Amino acid sequence: MKVIIDLCVVPIGVGTSVSSYIAACQRVLEDAGLSHQMHAYGTNVEGEWDEVMAAVKRCHEVVHELGAPRITTTIKLGTRIDRDQAMADKITSVQEKLG
Amino acid sequence: MKVIIDLCVVPIGVGTSVSSYIAACQRVLEDAGLSHQMHAYGTNVEGEWDEVMAAVKRCHEVVHELGAPRITTTIKLGTRIDRDQAMADKITSVQEKLG
Amino acid sequence: MKVIIDLCVVPIGVGTSVSSYIAACQRVLEDAGLSHQMHAYGTNVEGEWDEVMAAVKRCHEVVHELGAPRITTTIKLGTRIDRDQAMADKITSVQEKLG
Amino acid sequence: MKVIIDLCVVPIGVGTSVSSYIAACQRVLEDAGLSHQMHAYGTNVEGEWDEVMAAVKRCHEVVHELGAPRITTTIKLGTRIDRDQAMADKITSVQEKLG
Repeated sequence: MKVIIDLCVVPIGVGTSVSSYIAACQRVLEDAGLSHQMHAYGTNVEGEWDEVMAAVKRCHEVVHELGAPRITTTIKLGTRIDRDQAMADKITSVQEKLG
Repeated sequence: MKVIIDLCVVPIGVGTSVSSYIAACQRVLEDAGLSHQMHAYGTNVEGEWDEVMAAVKRCHEVVHELGAPRITTTIKLGTRIDRDQAMADKITSVQEKLG
Repeated sequence: MKVIIDLCVVPIGVGTSVSSYIAACQRVLEDAGLSHQMHAYGTNVEGEWDEVMAAVKRCHEVVHELGAPRITTTIKLGTRIDRDQAMADKITSVQEKLG
Repeated sequence: MKVIIDLCVVPIGVGTSVSSYIAACQRVLEDAGLSHQMHAYGTNVEGEWDEVMAAVKRCHEVVHELGAPRITTTIKLGTRIDRDQAMADKITSVQEKLG
């Protein structure tokens, strides 16, 4: 089962600057070989469900290892069985409607 | 690693009445033996990461099997390594502050 | 336009214990006279769109006033024009399907 | 109060193809003169709280007017009072850590 997710990991108890933790998560996604795209409030990731979810778990482990005592993460997660759809297709569909 | 999540599964392409799909997800959580509590906009679930996430995946599989061609799910997901905290503890902490 | 939301306010930069900030948000909802119900990972609120959203803004203001330099909030937000539906109705609909 | 949000509007009861509704929301943001950036699972928007939230409400109104009987939206919403931060700054901060 393919999945497209939007992942936003928020370390708590490490002050207001969280970019080094987010950078560590980017490396996790990179190491996992998953297609991903960071935006200003999260990162889109696509792939097989188990691989994507293993990377999400690894992000939590790595952020805790870096010293964050607490993490709250928000994930949006889409699956569909009617047809294949990649991240880029979703954007293209909207842009075509915008003409 | 223990996790507390808030799970909101939204089947798309099956009309406006989605309660039978949500009921199916409640049965998945029940069958998994996971502690869970439904509210008006999702369900809180707690347990070991892998067990909770396996149940989330099973929810997607079941909702697709019931006929939903597309699903978008929102998950909030909390872990902490500083101390144990159950779902009930989170509510109690706030209620104590409210006096 | 009526709305049902699920509100989860996360103060950042104030350590790992956030319950006093959440308690302050509960008081905001109480003072606004809005129907609301806290759960382990957020609070359901229902009412007229403008009143609910004014309360969400007030939560951010109050949490900043209490000393939080940064806040990240997750909101799920539902509207429907086909029929009236209160928070309790959503839970009842699922419970009926569960028999 | 400045805010950066991530907005994901999901029309329910209109079938599986939702891109025309998302395109309508893009036009709302455009018409509001708000800085915004679409990604594969939502749109980042930044601006003054009241202007951004008025646009979110307008998106719901427009999507209902286009025929969607029900909408569920997920919003992530960030404010900070310690310093100014635009959407681009958040990405730059992470990229600097990635070297």
